[in-house]
Amino acid sequence: MLALLVNGVECADAAQSISASDRGLNYGDGLFETMLLKQGRVRLLEAHLARLMLGCRRLGIECPDTDLLRAEINRICTGTDAGIVKLVLTRGSSGRGYRPIPDAAATRIIALHESVSAANRSIRVRWCDMRLSRNPALAGMKHLNRLEQVLAQREWNDPQIDEGLMLDSEGELVCATTSNIFIVRGNELATADLRYCGVRGVMRDEVIRLATTLAIPVHEEPLWPEDLETASEVFVTNSIRGLRSVTALEHQTWPCGHVTQALQEALNADA
Amino acid sequence: MLALLVNGVECADAAQSISASDRGLNYGDGLFETMLLKQGRVRLLEAHLARLMLGCRRLGIECPDTDLLRAEINRICTGTDAGIVKLVLTRGSSGRGYRPIPDAAATRIIALHESVSAANRSIRVRWCDMRLSRNPALAGMKHLNRLEQVLAQREWNDPQIDEGLMLDSEGELVCATTSNIFIVRGNELATADLRYCGVRGVMRDEVIRLATTLAIPVHEEPLWPEDLETASEVFVTNSIRGLRSVTALEHQTWPCGHVTQALQEALNADA
Repeated sequence: MLALLVNGVECADAAQSISASDRGLNYGDGLFETMLLKQGRVRLLEAHLARLMLGCRRLGIECPDTDLLRAEINRICTGTDAGIVKLVLTRGSSGRGYRPIPDAAATRIIALHESVSAANRSIRVRWCDMRLSRNPALAGMKHLNRLEQVLAQREWNDPQIDEGLMLDSEGELVCATTSNIFIVRGNELATADLRYCGVRGVMRDEVIRLATTLAIPVHEEPLWPEDLETASEVFVTNSIRGLRSVTALEHQTWPCGHVTQALQEALNADA
Repeated sequence: MLALLVNGVECADAAQSISASDRGLNYGDGLFETMLLKQGRVRLLEAHLARLMLGCRRLGIECPDTDLLRAEINRICTGTDAGIVKLVLTRGSSGRGYRPIPDAAATRIIALHESVSAANRSIRVRWCDMRLSRNPALAGMKHLNRLEQVLAQREWNDPQIDEGLMLDSEGELVCATTSNIFIVRGNELATADLRYCGVRGVMRDEVIRLATTLAIPVHEEPLWPEDLETASEVFVTNSIRGLRSVTALEHQTWPCGHVTQALQEALNADA
C-alpha cells in the first residue's frame, strides 16, 4: 500500500486505522471499488462512483457526497502516475448486533496500491469447485461479502492459470473470480445476465458500450458451461486488467479472434 | 464496548485498532462467536471454541491455539460478572486480492460488551422478505459474510417484534435473523437441518443435547412455513438470550407449552 486515507485523514500506518466496531469488519456491511490509475488519471471513475452510489441505495447506506470522494481520490493520486485505487465504503461503526443505526456515517477507506505487472493479453483459466449462491437482493453489487471468491481462489496455485470460472448453485456460468466473462458466437457477444449473483463489472459495462459503437450485438442472458463449447472466442474483463482473451480451459481452446481483438483495440484507443 | 483486546494487546480506543488491510474488513474473510458472560463464567465456552475451530478448518484459516484464546477471553472478563464476549477471528492482513497468503497469522479481536437487558421469555416474530442464499460450502458456519442478516433486520423497527424468520431462496424455513428455530409436534422437536445455509448455533446444539437427556426426540430436517401451521409450540434459541418461546407470528399464535417450558427449566438448571 502506497498511501491510505480513512475518512479523509492520512494514515501513515495502515495497521491501526480502522475501528473494531466497523460494520465492514463485523458483517461485510459495505461496498468497494477497485480502480486503475493510468497516466495520472483514474480510468472510468464516474462509472465506478455511479456503481458505488447504486450499491449504497440498494443497501441503505448513506453515500458520502461524490465530490468529497472525487476530491479524496484525487488527493491520494496526486504525484503518482500509475497504480490501483481501492475505495472501501462501509456502513460505519455501530454497537453489537446486525441492525444498522439509521443515518450512521459511512466509513471511507481509500488506498493507493502499486500497479500490477503488465497484464497478459491471453490467459488460461480453470473451473472452480466453489459455487456462487443465488440472491437477487445482492446480485450485481460489489459488496464486501466475498468469502465465495476467497475460497474459489484458494483452489489453485498454478501461476500458469490466471483465472477460475465460477458456476452458481444451479450450474449457470456467472463469471470468473475477479472478472466478468463474455463469449463470442458468430459476430455477436453474450455475457451472463447476473440476475441472481455476480458483480456488474464497470469494465463489463464499458465493453458492452464499446461493442455497441462497433455494431456488435450484445446479449445479456443466462449462460451455461455448454455455451463455451460452441463459442468461437472467449474473453474476461475487469477494471484493472482490461479485456483478456481466454485461450484455454482445461482441454478446450479458443483463438484470440477478431471480435476480441477489435474490442481490445477500441478499449486501448479509448484509454 | 467495555474492553478490547486485539492480538492480545489492550486497546483503550476501539476507533483505531484494526488494519485497513485486514481480510475481515475487505472480504468478510473470518468467523465470529458471541458468548454470554454470566456470574463470572463464559457459558458454553468449549462449544464456542469447537465451532470456531471447525470453521477455521473449513475456511483454511490458521486457528490460534485455543489455550491462547481461552487466556485472552479470561483476561478480558476478569473482574466482570456479566456481559457479552464477542470474538472475531479473521484470516489476517494481506495485500490486495482475494487469494489468501498461506499460513498468514489470523487476527484475534476479543471485545467485552455490556449485558443486554433481561431477555423476554416469550416473543413475537415476523416474516422477513430477505432470503438466505444457499451454499453448502458456507452452511453452518458463523462467518463474517452477514449482509443478508443485516438487510433482514432493516425490514422492521417495531420494538414489539423481537425476531424475523428467514426462508432460503427455495422457500425452506431456516432460522431467525439471530436465532435458530425449533417447532414442537406432539412431544417431538424439529429444527432446520442447515444443509444449505444458516448458522449451527451453539445454543441450538445445547438444546438438542438437553432434549436428549429429557428423552424428547429431535429431528433435524428441512422445515417449511407450513410446518408452523401444525406446530403445537415454537421457540428460538441463541447463545445470549437462551431459549425463547415464540407466541405470535402475524395471525398465528402458539402457547408457551410444556415442551418449551421443560427445556427452559433444563437450561436454567444447567446454567
